[in-house]
Amino acid sequence: MLIVQKYGGTSVGTLERIDEVAKRVISAKKKGNDLVVIVSAMSGETNKLIEWAEYFSKNPNDREMDVLLSAGERITSALLAIALSGKGFEAVAFSGRQAGMITDEFHTKAKIEFINPVAIKNALKEGKIVVIAGFQGISKNGDVTTLGRGGSDLSAVAIAGALNADLCEIYTDVDGVYTTDPRIEPKARKLDKISYDEMLELASLGAKVLQNRSVELAKKLNINLVTRSSFNNNEGTLIIGETKMEGAIVSGIALDRNQARVTVRNVDDKPGVAAKIFKILSQKEINVDMIIQNTGKDGIANISFTVPQNELDKAIDALNGLGENFSIESDSEIVKVSIVGVGMKSHSGIASKAFETLAQSNINMQMISTSEIRISMIVEAKYGELAVRILHDAYELDK
Amino acid sequence: MLIVQKYGGTSVGTLERIDEVAKRVISAKKKGNDLVVIVSAMSGETNKLIEWAEYFSKNPNDREMDVLLSAGERITSALLAIALSGKGFEAVAFSGRQAGMITDEFHTKAKIEFINPVAIKNALKEGKIVVIAGFQGISKNGDVTTLGRGGSDLSAVAIAGALNADLCEIYTDVDGVYTTDPRIEPKARKLDKISYDEMLELASLGAKVLQNRSVELAKKLNINLVTRSSFNNNEGTLIIGETKMEGAIVSGIALDRNQARVTVRNVDDKPGVAAKIFKILSQKEINVDMIIQNTGKDGIANISFTVPQNELDKAIDALNGLGENFSIESDSEIVKVSIVGVGMKSHSGIASKAFETLAQSNINMQMISTSEIRISMIVEAKYGELAVRILHDAYELDK
Repeated sequence: MLIVQKYGGTSVGTLERIDEVAKRVISAKKKGNDLVVIVSAMSGETNKLIEWAEYFSKNPNDREMDVLLSAGERITSALLAIALSGKGFEAVAFSGRQAGMITDEFHTKAKIEFINPVAIKNALKEGKIVVIAGFQGISKNGDVTTLGRGGSDLSAVAIAGALNADLCEIYTDVDGVYTTDPRIEPKARKLDKISYDEMLELASLGAKVLQNRSVELAKKLNINLVTRSSFNNNEGTLIIGETKMEGAIVSGIALDRNQARVTVRNVDDKPGVAAKIFKILSQKEINVDMIIQNTGKDGIANISFTVPQNELDKAIDALNGLGENFSIESDSEIVKVSIVGVGMKSHSGIASKAFETLAQSNINMQMISTSEIRISMIVEAKYGELAVRILHDAYELDK
Repeated sequence: MLIVQKYGGTSVGTLERIDEVAKRVISAKKKGNDLVVIVSAMSGETNKLIEWAEYFSKNPNDREMDVLLSAGERITSALLAIALSGKGFEAVAFSGRQAGMITDEFHTKAKIEFINPVAIKNALKEGKIVVIAGFQGISKNGDVTTLGRGGSDLSAVAIAGALNADLCEIYTDVDGVYTTDPRIEPKARKLDKISYDEMLELASLGAKVLQNRSVELAKKLNINLVTRSSFNNNEGTLIIGETKMEGAIVSGIALDRNQARVTVRNVDDKPGVAAKIFKILSQKEINVDMIIQNTGKDGIANISFTVPQNELDKAIDALNGLGENFSIESDSEIVKVSIVGVGMKSHSGIASKAFETLAQSNINMQMISTSEIRISMIVEAKYGELAVRILHDAYELDK
């Protein structure tokens, strides 16, 4: 098998940890696999470099920030290659450039344009373990670029795609994807499998195992993605296409505490008014999530939506700036509870079970929105964790 | 003027120091100059990275060591560029690759093959200050290489040559080149000027301001080299071609404490025997310095030579291994005192003044060797500093 492994910052956080990673890589290599290993910077290194830059400038140039930050991953890649060679396994350290990672020119948030994996393939042919500095690439004019937050995961998935790898393992300090946050519900169970789409819903809803960009790319490239811990030998969670799934009805419950609700009353119920509201929010780059418009009485409608809490003030200012005769209410003491599962598509009664469950505990739903594989409900913040626990129980996710 | 400045590890050893360097660069830029700045790694960084590598392997691969070590200079280059931009001066950070520094493939001790300065020139044309990570280049197959000890000086001189710069300033934590080590002779005087050849003799004799490779390259490229301190505004020492010099008779006195003397007695005074001795030493990669053979009596000669102290045991082993009937003596309690000056060529009496001066203090010379611009004498180690002081006085170097 050709396996791409990616180790995050805590997994390579100390020299001892890098040594542990080397042993894990060797163990996979000894089973006859070809190994390509993507590494992050040692935990703390990137923040140290950012602090150093901020000593000189509140707003350091993006291009030079990329030169600076890319050094962290290069250091880890060299150290891991040295550790592997020291244990008798030929290894070679590649920068993003040497791995053939070509990006656009948007420094600090570059997008991968294509990968030229010739050098990686040649090194693999020679029996070498290839260690690649994650998070970075090179633009067509030769400048070092970085891929933004979660960039090393993205490097791993993209390289797995370019190499047509059999498996892409993302190593972190958590065991995999859980049915819900174990700090909220101790009975939360680690999932063996989850579909890309479910993972996307869970990630965007606050299960911070993998970032959306990486999962989206894995879905697009149809990569078998595994997220698991480098601190133990537990099996992780396999993230794959839906067609390969047996179809759990509900996979997990997510809690998003970062939402605030805005309700605009006194909206003329005629075409163009809602558009005006969301146009101004979009112009101000405010991320609007759930939107609900009630059918109006007497030609007057109410529109509710949610925004990230730290964008609430900006949203209200923007609406007030419209000069309309709106009455604007907001509430940041709310949370979003979401039920995610591909099985919902074909099973009826999932939504009604959720509504009943909450009703039995006298939890009022302020807003509801649904997609094919998700039901989200806005409830008072103080009921958030309770809602997660009773829903987890109702769908028997601990089984 | 086009000025190349190079700042060593202590000059960029902290964020505060990098800020000071930025001010110094800006001050030169404000005078209307074009600036290209070469930086070393922050002091301590390179040693830290070496220690990290040695945690994994006593003998880490050279290729990966270069990936690792080159990160230090990249970090400094990014930070200085950010500091300059933060003060309102457009700056761009280049790696060795981006500076067009092409080397051979001998990792950790690569030689510069050529420099393609197009990117540097373009950035200068746009009015930018160019900050370059020293010590590193790229081989023709795309791997990062490093230039070995003193490599950043070499980067600076080579780039000054490729750009046909008017001046190449090497900033360290010492004021320049002195007539002798001020810790030995407090009356030592900083030289305003010195020729390449004198500097070469002084460097190899223990005045550790600049390494020979850099001075040799400066001589070859006819670069006006200045060595000065980044910790004050004192004028440094200009290192230039002889033809531009007024011709001081004696420029400095150097003391080399790292020598040991070997005397081989009972050598058949016939062709081939001396050759045999020095062939085996060369095969063992022992650096032989001064060599003296006395004319023999009764067909038996004595040969004396010096080697670095840490190679003495290896040298004696090698000689014993020849299986000849030699009598081998050695003495590591010796030092080499050298008088250096281009004026010696045209002035007689320089050597006899040295011999007289030592004789007056009853210091015995065990060996003497001379070149066009240097007289070296081996004396007992305990007389080394005294010899330096009385010679400094005899040639009135404090004047």
